[in-house]
Amino acid sequence: MALDDPAHQLAVEARYGRQEKPVPLLWNDTIAQLLAHRSIRSYSDAPLDPATIATLVAAAQSAASSSNLQFWSVVAVTDRTIKSKLAVLAGNQRHIDDAPLLLVWVADLHRTHELGVSHGVQTDALDYLDSFIVAAVDAGLAAQNAVVAAESLGLGTVYIGALRNRSNVVAELLDLPPRAVALFGLVVGWPDPSQSSAVKPRLPQQVVLHAERYSPTDPAEAIARYDALSRNFQADRQIAQTGWIAPVLARTAGPASLHGRETLKSILEDRQLPLN
Amino acid sequence: MALDDPAHQLAVEARYGRQEKPVPLLWNDTIAQLLAHRSIRSYSDAPLDPATIATLVAAAQSAASSSNLQFWSVVAVTDRTIKSKLAVLAGNQRHIDDAPLLLVWVADLHRTHELGVSHGVQTDALDYLDSFIVAAVDAGLAAQNAVVAAESLGLGTVYIGALRNRSNVVAELLDLPPRAVALFGLVVGWPDPSQSSAVKPRLPQQVVLHAERYSPTDPAEAIARYDALSRNFQADRQIAQTGWIAPVLARTAGPASLHGRETLKSILEDRQLPLN
Repeated sequence: MALDDPAHQLAVEARYGRQEKPVPLLWNDTIAQLLAHRSIRSYSDAPLDPATIATLVAAAQSAASSSNLQFWSVVAVTDRTIKSKLAVLAGNQRHIDDAPLLLVWVADLHRTHELGVSHGVQTDALDYLDSFIVAAVDAGLAAQNAVVAAESLGLGTVYIGALRNRSNVVAELLDLPPRAVALFGLVVGWPDPSQSSAVKPRLPQQVVLHAERYSPTDPAEAIARYDALSRNFQADRQIAQTGWIAPVLARTAGPASLHGRETLKSILEDRQLPLN
Repeated sequence: MALDDPAHQLAVEARYGRQEKPVPLLWNDTIAQLLAHRSIRSYSDAPLDPATIATLVAAAQSAASSSNLQFWSVVAVTDRTIKSKLAVLAGNQRHIDDAPLLLVWVADLHRTHELGVSHGVQTDALDYLDSFIVAAVDAGLAAQNAVVAAESLGLGTVYIGALRNRSNVVAELLDLPPRAVALFGLVVGWPDPSQSSAVKPRLPQQVVLHAERYSPTDPAEAIARYDALSRNFQADRQIAQTGWIAPVLARTAGPASLHGRETLKSILEDRQLPLN
C-alpha cells in the first residue's frame, strides 16, 4: 500500500481531521487496520467460530508481561443469563446482551498468592500499589492484542470500563477469589452490517506527544480546535453536539460523576488488595 | 496462510510448548505476527525513519480510550544524554542506550486538571483511584498498538517497567508536571541481526482462561508443567535454569523485592495523585 494511496490520506484525516495535516505516516496493512479501529456497539446475532476464544487469548498471552509475572486472568462469558446481569451492572449496555461473547479481564494477584501459600513463602509485594499497576497495564497490553486479532478476523469489539461501577457485585457474580478484581470487559461479535460506525477523531498529536521532555506549551488552542472537530463529527453522526471539553469536564467533576467507581479503593481493600 | 501450515503449528508450540496441544487457532498474517512477539534487548545502531514516531503515536491514539478521556501522554526520548540517564534509573538497562528511541508513556491527569482550571470548574474525580486506573489501562492499550505497528515495520521493542523504580527522579528529568507520572517505557529500534531472540512460553491457557465464571480448579499441576517448560526454554537459551515459579516468588516476596516501587504510592501523593 503506497504512501500516496488515497486510502492512507483518508484514514489519517478520519483520525485527526483535515486541518491537522499530520506528517506522512509509514504505512502497511497492519497500520491501516490499527488506524481504522472503531468501537462497535451494534452486533448481529451470528455465532463465533468455536476457535475464537482460544485465538484471542493466545494473542493476548503473546503480549509482553512485566517480569513474566502474568498477573491477569480472563473470564469468557457466553452464558446469556450472566451476560445479561453484567449488562445491567454496566449501566444497561445492550450490546453486552446482543454480542455472543464478553471477555472480562481480571487483575489476578490471587494465583500468585496461592503459589506462595503452597510453597510456604510470603508474597507481601502483592499488597503494594505497584503490583496492581503491573496487573492493570499488562491486562491492557493483553486485551489490546486480543482486539487487534479480533479485528483482523473481521470481528468488532468495544471495551466496557463500566464493569468497575459495581466491582464488588461483578466479583461475586463471576466467583472471583480475594485479590482478583475485574478491570474491564471486552465485547466481541460480528458488527451489525445495517448500522454504520465511524472512526472517532483524537486529540492532535502535538497535544499528547512531547519531544525529549514534557512540553510546557499550553495546548489550549489545539484542544479548542479538537473540540470543534468533535462537534463536526457529532453533527455528521446526528448525535448531540457536545464537543469534547464539556463531556470530559462533566465526567471528571467529582466523585458523583464516577457512577460508583469512587468506591473502588475500599472495594479493593475488602478484596485484600490494600494497594500499600 | 492455511491452518495446517507448519508455521502455524510451530508458532503455537513456541508459545505454549509441544505438550499443551492447544486447540487449532484461527490464523492469518496479523495473528501470526502477534504470536511471534518477542522482546528485543539487542539493537543495531541503524537510525529510524523520521516518520516512525508519528506513525507509532497515530497507532497508539487509534486504540480505544475510556469515555474518550485520553488520559495519557507520551514523551519521545531520542537525546542520548537523557536516554542514558533513564537507562541508569531503570537499573542500567543498556538497550535503552543502544536503541535510537525510548517512548515514555505517562499517566497524564494534568492536562484535564488544567482544562478544568481554565474553565473555572472542579475536576475532583481526578483525585480518585479509578481515574488513575483508566490512565494506566488506556496507556497500556495505546502502547500495545504502538508495539504492533512497530513490529509490522520490522522494528523491535521492549517495555521498561523499571522506570517506576525511581518515579520521582524520572518525573524531574522529564519535566513532568504534577498529576503526571511515567508508567513505563518502550524501547524501539532495529533488532541486532547478530543476536538471536526467542518466543517466550506462557502459562497454559487453562490457567489464565476461565469459562463463564472463575474456575475453582487448582492450577498447581499445570503451573508445574509450565515451570518445567520454562526450564527447558532456559536450557535451550543457555541461561540460568530458574524455571518460572522461583523468580516469580522472589519478585513478589516483599517490599524489598520491588526495587523502589514500594514507594510509588507516596510518590503519587507527592505528585498530587492521592488515589482516593
